[in-house]
Parts: sequence; C-alpha cells; structure tokens
Amino acid sequence: MSGPAAETPSAIQICRIMRPDDANVAGNVHGGTILKMIEEAGAIISTRHCNSQNGERCVAALARVERTDFLSPMCIGEVAHVSAGITYTSKHSVEVQVNVLSENILTGTKKLTNKATLWYVPLSLKNVDKVLEVPPVVYSRQEQEEEGRKRYEAQKLERMETKWRNGDIVQPVLNPEPNTVSYSQSSLIHLVGPSDCTLHGFVHGGVTMKLMDEVAGIVAARHCKTNIVTASVDAINFHDKIRKGCVITISGRMTFTSNKSMEIEVLVDADPVVDNSQKRYRAASAFFTYVSLSQEGKPLPVPQLVPGCGKPLQSPGT
Amino acid sequence: MSGPAAETPSAIQICRIMRPDDANVAGNVHGGTILKMIEEAGAIISTRHCNSQNGERCVAALARVERTDFLSPMCIGEVAHVSAGITYTSKHSVEVQVNVLSENILTGTKKLTNKATLWYVPLSLKNVDKVLEVPPVVYSRQEQEEEGRKRYEAQKLERMETKWRNGDIVQPVLNPEPNTVSYSQSSLIHLVGPSDCTLHGFVHGGVTMKLMDEVAGIVAARHCKTNIVTASVDAINFHDKIRKGCVITISGRMTFTSNKSMEIEVLVDADPVVDNSQKRYRAASAFFTYVSLSQEGKPLPVPQLVPGCGKPLQSPGT
Amino acid sequence: MSGPAAETPSAIQICRIMRPDDANVAGNVHGGTILKMIEEAGAIISTRHCNSQNGERCVAALARVERTDFLSPMCIGEVAHVSAGITYTSKHSVEVQVNVLSENILTGTKKLTNKATLWYVPLSLKNVDKVLEVPPVVYSRQEQEEEGRKRYEAQKLERMETKWRNGDIVQPVLNPEPNTVSYSQSSLIHLVGPSDCTLHGFVHGGVTMKLMDEVAGIVAARHCKTNIVTASVDAINFHDKIRKGCVITISGRMTFTSNKSMEIEVLVDADPVVDNSQKRYRAASAFFTYVSLSQEGKPLPVPQLVPGCGKPLQSPGT
Repeated sequence: MSGPAAETPSAIQICRIMRPDDANVAGNVHGGTILKMIEEAGAIISTRHCNSQNGERCVAALARVERTDFLSPMCIGEVAHVSAGITYTSKHSVEVQVNVLSENILTGTKKLTNKATLWYVPLSLKNVDKVLEVPPVVYSRQEQEEEGRKRYEAQKLERMETKWRNGDIVQPVLNPEPNTVSYSQSSLIHLVGPSDCTLHGFVHGGVTMKLMDEVAGIVAARHCKTNIVTASVDAINFHDKIRKGCVITISGRMTFTSNKSMEIEVLVDADPVVDNSQKRYRAASAFFTYVSLSQEGKPLPVPQLVPGCGKPLQSPGT
Repeated sequence: MSGPAAETPSAIQICRIMRPDDANVAGNVHGGTILKMIEEAGAIISTRHCNSQNGERCVAALARVERTDFLSPMCIGEVAHVSAGITYTSKHSVEVQVNVLSENILTGTKKLTNKATLWYVPLSLKNVDKVLEVPPVVYSRQEQEEEGRKRYEAQKLERMETKWRNGDIVQPVLNPEPNTVSYSQSSLIHLVGPSDCTLHGFVHGGVTMKLMDEVAGIVAARHCKTNIVTASVDAINFHDKIRKGCVITISGRMTFTSNKSMEIEVLVDADPVVDNSQKRYRAASAFFTYVSLSQEGKPLPVPQLVPGCGKPLQSPGT
Repeated sequence: MSGPAAETPSAIQICRIMRPDDANVAGNVHGGTILKMIEEAGAIISTRHCNSQNGERCVAALARVERTDFLSPMCIGEVAHVSAGITYTSKHSVEVQVNVLSENILTGTKKLTNKATLWYVPLSLKNVDKVLEVPPVVYSRQEQEEEGRKRYEAQKLERMETKWRNGDIVQPVLNPEPNTVSYSQSSLIHLVGPSDCTLHGFVHGGVTMKLMDEVAGIVAARHCKTNIVTASVDAINFHDKIRKGCVITISGRMTFTSNKSMEIEVLVDADPVVDNSQKRYRAASAFFTYVSLSQEGKPLPVPQLVPGCGKPLQSPGT
C-alpha cells in the first residue's frame, strides 16, 4: 500500500476501539462513524500544516470529499486505524489522503477498509470569510505536483457543476406505496450543539457526514427492511459553512436501485433559526450507495424502485 | 473526618456537572437533559425496589411523568443534584418523587429547579409483556398511603383519557406563512442505538423525553427566533415500549400561545423498520410549555399564533 | 416515608447506570470509565471546598491520583456509586478519598470495586497560573491531620522524581516481532473538544485518564489477544494543564510482564496546533496493570515480553 507514509512531520494517525454506539444492531460499524474519523484526521493535519509558518492563524474547513468506497465491513471491538497525509497544496487549498485499516486485536488480522481524499480551505481565525494562503508542501518526486494539480482542477470543475444541480428537495407525499421514492424518503432535524463544532463555532465536516449517512441508512432500511451497510459515497461537496445554533435538516431519498445496491441522494439545509436576517440555505449534498445483507452477512437482492407515488408537493413542509 | 457514607436503601442521589453539550447556545441547560437525569434516578430506585424480594426478576419501565415545572434555569458549570425516593406503591406500579437542585460550586448557591413525580411498572425479564407485583413500601404516617392512592387513581383516569386523544399527527403543508402552526412544526427521526436502551433492549424513558424536548425547542425557536427555555411539561404518557432497532419519529407543533408562553404538542411514533410484521405505533405524547428570553434572561413577549396555513395533507409524509 | 434527603456538605455521591458504551465486548466496564467518574466526584467536592470562603473564585485542577486497584469487575446494567470526601488539606492542595461500589439492582448485590485518593490544586479563575490558598478542613481526630501530612509529603517527593523520568516516547518500529514491546505499542491522538473541558477551557483530568486507559487496553489486547481488564493504576501525575483546541497524543507500551499481569506505561503529550508560540509538552504519565481473562472470567497466563524488536525509526511517532 503506498498511501500516506509513516509519521513524516506531515502525517498523522488516529486509532480508536469501535464501540456499540458506533455500529448498527447487527454489529457493523456505520459508514458515518468512519467518515467522521477520516475528517477528524484530515482537519488536524491540514490545520497544523496551514499554521506551520508565521502569519495569520487559521482553521482548515472541509470543502470536499472525493468518492470513497467501503471495501470491507468493520465490527464492534475492532480497532480503527486512520492515517492521513498531505499530498498536494494549491494556493488556497490542501489535499489530504486518508487510509483506514481495521485491526482485529484478538487475531491480529488487518484489513484495508477505506481510502479517501479530502480538500480543505484555510479560513482566518479573525475573519472567517477570509481564505488565507497555504504554505507549499515539498514533493519527493517532480510528477507529484503535476498529478496533484490535475486532481485539483478536476474537482474544481465538478464542484462548480454540482452547485447548479441543487435546486430540489425531498417532497412529502400522500399515502406512499411500498417501494416508491416517497415510501422510504426520510428527513431529520438536528440542533447544532457545542460538540458538533470547531473552536470557531462551525460544524465539523465529519459531523455533517455522519448525519448524512444516518439518514441514508434509514432510507435504505425502510426500502429493504433488512440489515443494510454503506458501500460507497459519491463526492460530497460542502457549499457553505454551518454556524453554531443553526437547525440543520438532512433529507434523503432513493434515486436508483440495481439488483444489488441502492443509490440515495442526501441534501443538507441549514436554517439560522435565531438570526432573522439569514435565510435557509443548502450546505452540502451527496449520493450514498447501500447494500442489503442477510443475517450471515451475504448480499441480498434489493427490491426494485417503482415509479408510482402519491401526490407530490411543490415546497418543503416538515 | 471519616470517608464518604453509604446511601440509605430507599433513596438515591445522582449528581453531575453540566457541560456545554447539555445546554443551548445561551448556556441554559436543556429541559431534556434534566428530564433524562430525573428518569435515570427513577429507573434505578424503582427497579431496585421491585427486585427487593425473592421472586421473578424484573425491570421497571416508565409509564407516566406527572406535570413538572422548571422553576429556575440551570447553567453550564453548575452541579445538578437529582434525588429520588419512593412515595407510593400500588399492586402493579411504583410512584417516585424526584427533586432537582442546582448548585453553583463557586458561590455555594443552591436552587430548587424541579420537582417531578414518575410512575413505573415492573416488567418480567423472562417475558416483557408480563407485569409483576410490586412489594409494598412501609409508610411512616397512615395518611401517606391514602394520599398516594388518590394520586394513583387520578393518574389512571387521565392516562385512559389521553389514549383516545391521540389520533392526529403533524401534517406537512405547502408554503406555510410566518406564525402559523405549519411554519414552525418540526419532526426528527432517530435510529435507536444500544446506549439508548436498557439491558433488555427497550428505550429508556429519559432518552425519549430528551428527544421530545429537543423537538419542542426547535418548534419554539422557529416560532420566536429568540433564546427559548422549557418552562414546564404537562403529563407525559408512555403508551407502549420502543424496542432496539426501531426508527422513532418525534413530531412537534405549536398548539397555543399566550403573551408570555408557547404550548407545543409532541408525539412519538415508533416504526419497527426491520420487522415487517409490526406496524408503526404511537409510543408517547406530551405538551411542553416554552418561554422566550432576551439576551439578559428577561421574558420576552411571544408572537401570537395565527390561524392561516397552507394546504394540509391527510396522512404522514416525511 | 418522606422525600429524599439533602446531601451533607462535605461528601458527594455520583451514581449512574453502566451502559454498553462504558464496557468492552465482554461486558466488563472499562477502568477508564470508572476513573472518569472518580475524577468528576473529586473535582466537584474540591472545587466546592476551595470556594467555601469569601475570596478569589477558583477551580480545582487534578494534580495527582494515587495508585488504585480495581478490586472486582463491574458489568453493563449495574449501578456505579461513587462517593467522595475530603480527607486532608495542605496550604495549596486538597486530598480527596473516593470509594466506588457496584450495585446489581436485580439481585441487590453490592461490591467494593475501587478506593482512590486524588490531589487537587485550586487555580484562580482570573489567572489560571496562580495557585490560591485552600481553606483548612476540620478533623474529627487529632491524628488525621498528622497522617494526612505524611501522605502529602510522600506524594510531593514522588511527583518530583517522576518529572525526570519522562524523556522518552513510543518509537514506531519496522516489522516488530510478536511479544516484543514494539509489537503491541500503540498511540492515539485526540482533538480536544468543548465537552472535554471545564468551564475555563482546560481538559478534565478524568477525560485524560479515560483515554490513557483506552490506549493501555489496546496495548494489552494486542499482546494477549484475549479479553483483558484493568487491574490497577499506578500513581498518575499531571505535569501540566491541557488547553481547549490542543491535539493530544496518548502513547502506551508494555514495560513488564509477570505470569498473571502486564504493566503498561502511558504518556500524554499535548500539541497546541493553532498556537505556534508553544511547543509540544508532556502533560501526564502513568503505569497501568492489566490482567487477561478467559471467556468464563478466569485469569489466564500472560505471554512473556521478549527483548528483541525490529528496526527502530528516527522520528517520533505513531
């Protein structure tokens, strides 16, 4: 495995035992738990790097997570090892690569469970609307910079595209029929608390991703009525920061089913309840892919999505 | 000075420092945090009492909380003292009285913040649908038994009445106008996890109450757009147990406003997602009263609820 | 029976039901969970005492925990009773003794699980680098003061010694061989969040101890590959405070094995990521003793530590 090298000053490793609350009833660790740890490692290493030279102090805010696959399931009692390294810097952003291993400390078995790429942007501590400059990393090979630049340009393009796609929202529907989109669509509200936030009062990207995975999982479970696990997450874009005190609504709906998997769109909207001057806005969006498992952990066929529905509405309700 | 004393068998005291996560942005501890501690004390003392004689082992399940007032606010850094004692037993139920004090350990000031009365029912560990008999308590005065019996009869009557009132549900609505019921109504879904449950796989009553208060607070904040705090909770009735693995939907809507306060109805519905054989059912319901506070902690006038709305729906959507 | 009694001024009692997240996969409550509750009780009673006279307000910071044994295991569903009392005061420090009982509320069985002694120092709220004076306690017997003074002098001496011992750190090693120090050594990093801290922005001693126990447990499990539990903790010294926003690295390595037990050294280093002016520093250190248990809870022989290792690395690490 190439990935991030061992403990150069620019690498970091988090490890933690998986507990019952990290997992579903069948003992499989939630994809959201893993995404949250990945983001914590990314936030530490990129904040550390962006403050490594004298100058204005800053905090690194998550801007985007590239598509990531969940290669093998993790279970309660296993130790998750999350290692992160910086692989590219542009003038105003940092690319972090993260590997996740699961270790069964009783048998010694280790498995690669995830590889992820995250993009961070340094925001000034004095003025959170000001993006600072990123100190350049030193590349060990010439090509690394060039390859990094290509990844940077590609994600920039994709981010701009998704900005346009985000007009719609989950619509409540009358008497939904089984296996329709309306039948399984779900949304939850969450009042942002202190533990959800960075020192500067913004929600950690990892907290948002954990809630997104939770909603996607409920949509998948309602559709299948079986044990379901996260198989992959499409690129997640963070369009705007979420402040402490906001109420966030996370909505999910099934957009596609194949024989073996389900695709669920998840939207995050923030509502600055107490601040009358600001309107509700779209903060993040992504597509999650889930699979259905039997009690023995074997893949099960997924009920196909049927087109019918109830009576759709034009605007958000609940 | 000798070491710490042991507790008496018939009383229990829980205390804990209030942390940032227990409170809202203004530093006021959530009513739900306090309700959860009250229920933990009640569950310990009633389970202990019901198992105090030889016979079948049981766990005490919360059946009802009487109306309770939040007499003074509690703040981050203060110590909550929750003390509980058994005050009455009928053949199949236990009445527990709980007092909550807040202590400022820097100034030594103590304030009574709550008095609550809870009713528990002992369920057999072998068969959770079987209600066991409660060992009688010894009363220090004759009248105590008679007074307790009256409270028991009164709550039994009220419980039966509320069973009939619970047909309706929060309805999503098109384009709600400000200050209407539809404008502030909110609901959240929660996937029941291991830490939410007793050893026997049922959700703690306190966990449910904390979620109910959270939804009520979001409804109140959406209506007022100010700092809001729980003033009181009407009797909460627990109609049915909630099993591990359920998805619960907690819905709240404004039902009444006076000049100084808001009344919010909260309903809890449980959906045994993975178990196809069981339908969604009403698990609990209550009315919460909230007040609006200025930044200095003074009561503010509440915007009046207006009758208009959008287009209501007939059945649950989201 | 009258209502619940008020607590006496000089003692405090915390109790709480043990939940799945408090325990390992075998259902044994983590030593770290118990250490955290012990410290919460100690912090409440010593902060209360140090503010009991008029004068500058302060918060009691944990300076040291004396060696403590875990006398019997605690399980999920049991109630932990933690009671604390002040047993000695010097001019600038407070000694707190804490007892922990486990209660099985189904059978009524109670067991003593821990006795611990903690030392606190009052820090001014206005200037956290200033140590205030402690109001004297009243002793019921003359000898108590003299005995306390001896304990005070003994711990002061030991604290000074350990300061010198703390130069080294866990070094990652290539291809470690089974049963060597390098094979089981582990470290985790943690970004300090609001809920980890006191009102004044410093990490609670109990939070640090819980993380230390977690790392020690991973080291022990990697070495033994069995169910392991905390048997005792050697004196824990807190050399320096940890501020909010720091990243802390907790590292553990096996230092000794006997036939029945393992000794693990745990070091805590704090890194003020955002604050460039301050260097990484050693915040705490301790030795934990673990035992290995069979599935029936019987002690198992421990594999002996072997001297060999792999190829050491030059840079600090994992």
